[in-house]
Amino acid sequence: MILKVDGKIPREILERLIKKLEEDLNVEVYPTVGKDFTILGLVGDTSVIDIKHVSSFEYVVDVQRIQDPFKRAGRHFKPEDSIIEVGGKVKIGGKDLVMMAGPCSVESEEQLLTIAKAVKKAGANMLRGGVVKPRTSPYAFQGMGMEGIKLMKKAKEETGLPIVCEVMSIEQLHEFGPHLDMIQLGARNMQNFDLLKEVGKTNIPVLLKRGLSATIEEWLMSAEYIMAGGNENVVLCERGIRTYETAYRNVLDLNAVPMLKSKTHLPIVVDPAHGTGKWWMVKDLANAGVAVGAHGLMVEVHHKPEEAFSDGPQSLKPEKFEELMTEVQKVAEIFGKKFF
Amino acid sequence: MILKVDGKIPREILERLIKKLEEDLNVEVYPTVGKDFTILGLVGDTSVIDIKHVSSFEYVVDVQRIQDPFKRAGRHFKPEDSIIEVGGKVKIGGKDLVMMAGPCSVESEEQLLTIAKAVKKAGANMLRGGVVKPRTSPYAFQGMGMEGIKLMKKAKEETGLPIVCEVMSIEQLHEFGPHLDMIQLGARNMQNFDLLKEVGKTNIPVLLKRGLSATIEEWLMSAEYIMAGGNENVVLCERGIRTYETAYRNVLDLNAVPMLKSKTHLPIVVDPAHGTGKWWMVKDLANAGVAVGAHGLMVEVHHKPEEAFSDGPQSLKPEKFEELMTEVQKVAEIFGKKFF
Amino acid sequence: MILKVDGKIPREILERLIKKLEEDLNVEVYPTVGKDFTILGLVGDTSVIDIKHVSSFEYVVDVQRIQDPFKRAGRHFKPEDSIIEVGGKVKIGGKDLVMMAGPCSVESEEQLLTIAKAVKKAGANMLRGGVVKPRTSPYAFQGMGMEGIKLMKKAKEETGLPIVCEVMSIEQLHEFGPHLDMIQLGARNMQNFDLLKEVGKTNIPVLLKRGLSATIEEWLMSAEYIMAGGNENVVLCERGIRTYETAYRNVLDLNAVPMLKSKTHLPIVVDPAHGTGKWWMVKDLANAGVAVGAHGLMVEVHHKPEEAFSDGPQSLKPEKFEELMTEVQKVAEIFGKKFF
Amino acid sequence: MILKVDGKIPREILERLIKKLEEDLNVEVYPTVGKDFTILGLVGDTSVIDIKHVSSFEYVVDVQRIQDPFKRAGRHFKPEDSIIEVGGKVKIGGKDLVMMAGPCSVESEEQLLTIAKAVKKAGANMLRGGVVKPRTSPYAFQGMGMEGIKLMKKAKEETGLPIVCEVMSIEQLHEFGPHLDMIQLGARNMQNFDLLKEVGKTNIPVLLKRGLSATIEEWLMSAEYIMAGGNENVVLCERGIRTYETAYRNVLDLNAVPMLKSKTHLPIVVDPAHGTGKWWMVKDLANAGVAVGAHGLMVEVHHKPEEAFSDGPQSLKPEKFEELMTEVQKVAEIFGKKFF
Repeated sequence: MILKVDGKIPREILERLIKKLEEDLNVEVYPTVGKDFTILGLVGDTSVIDIKHVSSFEYVVDVQRIQDPFKRAGRHFKPEDSIIEVGGKVKIGGKDLVMMAGPCSVESEEQLLTIAKAVKKAGANMLRGGVVKPRTSPYAFQGMGMEGIKLMKKAKEETGLPIVCEVMSIEQLHEFGPHLDMIQLGARNMQNFDLLKEVGKTNIPVLLKRGLSATIEEWLMSAEYIMAGGNENVVLCERGIRTYETAYRNVLDLNAVPMLKSKTHLPIVVDPAHGTGKWWMVKDLANAGVAVGAHGLMVEVHHKPEEAFSDGPQSLKPEKFEELMTEVQKVAEIFGKKFF
Repeated sequence: MILKVDGKIPREILERLIKKLEEDLNVEVYPTVGKDFTILGLVGDTSVIDIKHVSSFEYVVDVQRIQDPFKRAGRHFKPEDSIIEVGGKVKIGGKDLVMMAGPCSVESEEQLLTIAKAVKKAGANMLRGGVVKPRTSPYAFQGMGMEGIKLMKKAKEETGLPIVCEVMSIEQLHEFGPHLDMIQLGARNMQNFDLLKEVGKTNIPVLLKRGLSATIEEWLMSAEYIMAGGNENVVLCERGIRTYETAYRNVLDLNAVPMLKSKTHLPIVVDPAHGTGKWWMVKDLANAGVAVGAHGLMVEVHHKPEEAFSDGPQSLKPEKFEELMTEVQKVAEIFGKKFF
Repeated sequence: MILKVDGKIPREILERLIKKLEEDLNVEVYPTVGKDFTILGLVGDTSVIDIKHVSSFEYVVDVQRIQDPFKRAGRHFKPEDSIIEVGGKVKIGGKDLVMMAGPCSVESEEQLLTIAKAVKKAGANMLRGGVVKPRTSPYAFQGMGMEGIKLMKKAKEETGLPIVCEVMSIEQLHEFGPHLDMIQLGARNMQNFDLLKEVGKTNIPVLLKRGLSATIEEWLMSAEYIMAGGNENVVLCERGIRTYETAYRNVLDLNAVPMLKSKTHLPIVVDPAHGTGKWWMVKDLANAGVAVGAHGLMVEVHHKPEEAFSDGPQSLKPEKFEELMTEVQKVAEIFGKKFF
Repeated sequence: MILKVDGKIPREILERLIKKLEEDLNVEVYPTVGKDFTILGLVGDTSVIDIKHVSSFEYVVDVQRIQDPFKRAGRHFKPEDSIIEVGGKVKIGGKDLVMMAGPCSVESEEQLLTIAKAVKKAGANMLRGGVVKPRTSPYAFQGMGMEGIKLMKKAKEETGLPIVCEVMSIEQLHEFGPHLDMIQLGARNMQNFDLLKEVGKTNIPVLLKRGLSATIEEWLMSAEYIMAGGNENVVLCERGIRTYETAYRNVLDLNAVPMLKSKTHLPIVVDPAHGTGKWWMVKDLANAGVAVGAHGLMVEVHHKPEEAFSDGPQSLKPEKFEELMTEVQKVAEIFGKKFF
């Protein structure tokens, strides 16, 4: 950690500051005296130091981290790739890619089973489906709840696909969690810290979506929250970020994939449906997601998108999903990977 | 609501679509046929229509709202300004301005009482103080919890100031809520919809902070969630938005104040501390906040910012806070307002 | 075009407004009367209507385009893909992909020829190299100017590769243009309208980079400026947009590729070097760029990046560039394309 | 300047790097060896070092500036506020505030004189008016050119107000410049470096608008370009930045005012018309601009905004402008300032 200190600091205050830093933070401090500023280099385990705390000292103008603030999530902590096992079948993080497909919302048994069978047939290896929906409007469909979980379990029985559903609160975590192979934490809950802590106490695999305008560092700190509690089964999901551009719903940030791979050992999945908001862009971005090195994809499929209760505009029809699977498989092969 | 439909739509499908819209959504549909596109104007109560649902119909290229999607929060629904009463004393939304001041985090009795008395003396009319903190890092100070609530109540007894504290979960809402004059929902929880719904079932006044990258519309939809449940005591708090600029923590969006006043009857408070992240910028932006027409301010004060457990860099010392109060009072007077 | 008009508009003013619109703008106007608002649908050639002009009429609350504001650049104007020929050899826009590679800045004959031969050998089909540089600091290297153009021509003679260089002003356009196979307009000049107009008077192929925070629509309007002058040889280059994320220099917006392909017939090239700012991310994003459907790539190569006068951190060494070529070729083949 | 170097760097390469830095850059280098990284502190005049150059050395992971990269524009270079004299009358930068008012575009003699007299009467002390317009569309009104300059001079004769007009190219600078009291460089030209250099060779006062998504640092570097050429008469103009919010045209960034005042001695003017894009928001933000400490305002006024050739939606009618002047004067007085 680097502290930029105003050069006007009196000598005795500088000495007192250095002493305080060394004692309070258990680090060694190396000063470099420049013309207008003095630089203090802090050596030791600075990942747990609160940058805001250190910024408040008088004469301290700026503080920069040198070490990433996450530990368990960091590649320096665990150099080899993590492989997260889901439902005793799917392994996320290695050469085998995961395809999580299914409807945005679970709406009925007929709807879910139709779609589940279609995605299974096309080559998906996990089934997604929302039973509670973070809807902007209180007047929009809010999801089937526990009734939907039962349908997801039924679909699992029929297809053999492990299932992933979003949970939005601690209560839902406890209610739905035991029935699921993986839980999803949505973009709007990426910094719901109480929920993250509670998830950390379980050992259920987690798909942690990036917040709408979360930085890479904040995202990894949210993973750290879960891992600090003991649950190391975290998979990251890039789903587009908010920018000034209005031509699409979000901008899918594929830069995030290689950057994350350099910083963390956790696997990364790409969601081109939310990342674009338009079904006719999904296949192209899915191909790009595999080409850039993601460990898997999440795609929304609906057999009647115009009747979908949510996110119809970004859902693929089953026949389009099949086309997508055919193409992404070919891209994967180039890189020695496959959807198994 | 306006639907932009591809001009290539066959006549009978267009007719079926219009019929379906009229029946399902209980609206009248008026088509305008252009060269490349046909426009369908939907007349009726379109505020409850789900834009994503309508976007999914085949040939529908784009959907634009004409009516705002919020009802209870909207000025068209209630033209006169709402005035929210807090703690039987403070009225937010009229000519009297509110100043919520206090430490970012409650740290100890000595700390809280010192600061509470100082802000009271300088003219604040509400006391703020966090007992649970949404910290990016799991290793940072997480707040005193219920112990802190007790200290806040003690500070209220000694100063007479109504108190406001953040709650981050449904559990905390039920635990802390009954002891508070106002609850704060933080930026990271603006779209924690389950929490919003639960807050809607109480009648405790709520300070609803804008999300880090929330649009005006999303923010008002979150207010709508609370109001739809029956709790109409919502005060909005602008606290800066996330942009590309790194010279400050956030960009305080003062455009939001007149825009909100045109769209909603709810009061608006400005938080220049989070909006800048730097204590030496707070006074200037507080002045601007009053000048632009806000109904009040929220400011962080700490007698020893360099020892603060959180957000020290943006906390004012009591003497600086006094200066701020003197200036903002003068600005308020010009507009016929006062901090009472 | 859709005008949202306040429902409180008096009947005779509404009639006058409609008449004025029909006469001034040569369109037909179809009103739809709702509860709070009246909608006016304008039918005719609205692409040339100035949205700001129409927005200024009293009672007009909002104006939305239905038709895209560009004409010559639009796919509705010319449905089939444009293929731009460069240097009598390279064709951009079809099944053959273009690879423009070379140093960020031309620094010396030895440097340029070394790199030119290396990229030619690895399979590049165009040579890039800056002789004037848009540098943030007036104290940074500003480029070799005409001296550099001569070196580029020499490199062309030795390798046979057509050459592309940036021009930053009308003067440079006239000085450098006649020597070049293609000119590049940089991100900072995307809305240098006087320069765009002047480029429109030539028939030199243009690589038009997206502005740092330009929307898709603004970008296509800049292409329109050039095309309106008579120069239809425009190639678009996505080079990353500015967001709140600081982990990389920009966010490469690959969503732009399919979106542009739906709106325009012009070819699109992706620049993963500027889009990331980090050499070790370039290959992954180059693969993604081809997978998402771009018509080519632009990549910076330097044999001694640590001695480069500009953008060293995002330049590949020749051996890394060879690896990249090998991989992107394989990705291209899947989609029936090749770098010829 | 701080270099973060990978701890895996071999000892002899580290030593060579330090030697090279000291020799090439004329600085002293102080290393601090941490667990995973070594920090090199560079002491000396680092403001002219190219951050990209230094970033390219092998093993260098990151580079951070400690010293701001601007010199002449920096407050450390000239601690006292600069006061820029315009037209022998107006002084920008001290206790007297400037109000630049007038139409967005000069359209006719009748239009300009009517507006010029109205703003003069209401208390404006400079006249603005565009004769060339940076229009997104090639089909929109492009300005009157030299004809407009003549009208501006006539309006100056009649009202005595110094005049400011935008120039968009070097050619226009030479054509219009000698007739103007101040030239404006628009947001889209903030990084038109060739134009900046040419302006630097004159001594005409310059109003330098912030780019649509320019950082504070980039903006000051553009001022530095002009000043490096010898023209120190630079006034900065905050005119709103681009964000994700679509409720208004831009977000006026008033944080910029105190931040700029800490970093530079140059005066700052606020433009609430472009900063909001809506005439009914202008007065509130003008008040905020004065309250936050700006040295003046720029406002668009039009007597018939619905007939304006550009930016009608953000132009005030003369009677609204008078109201604005009355209010901003009162706000100014509180801070011991006045519009003279």
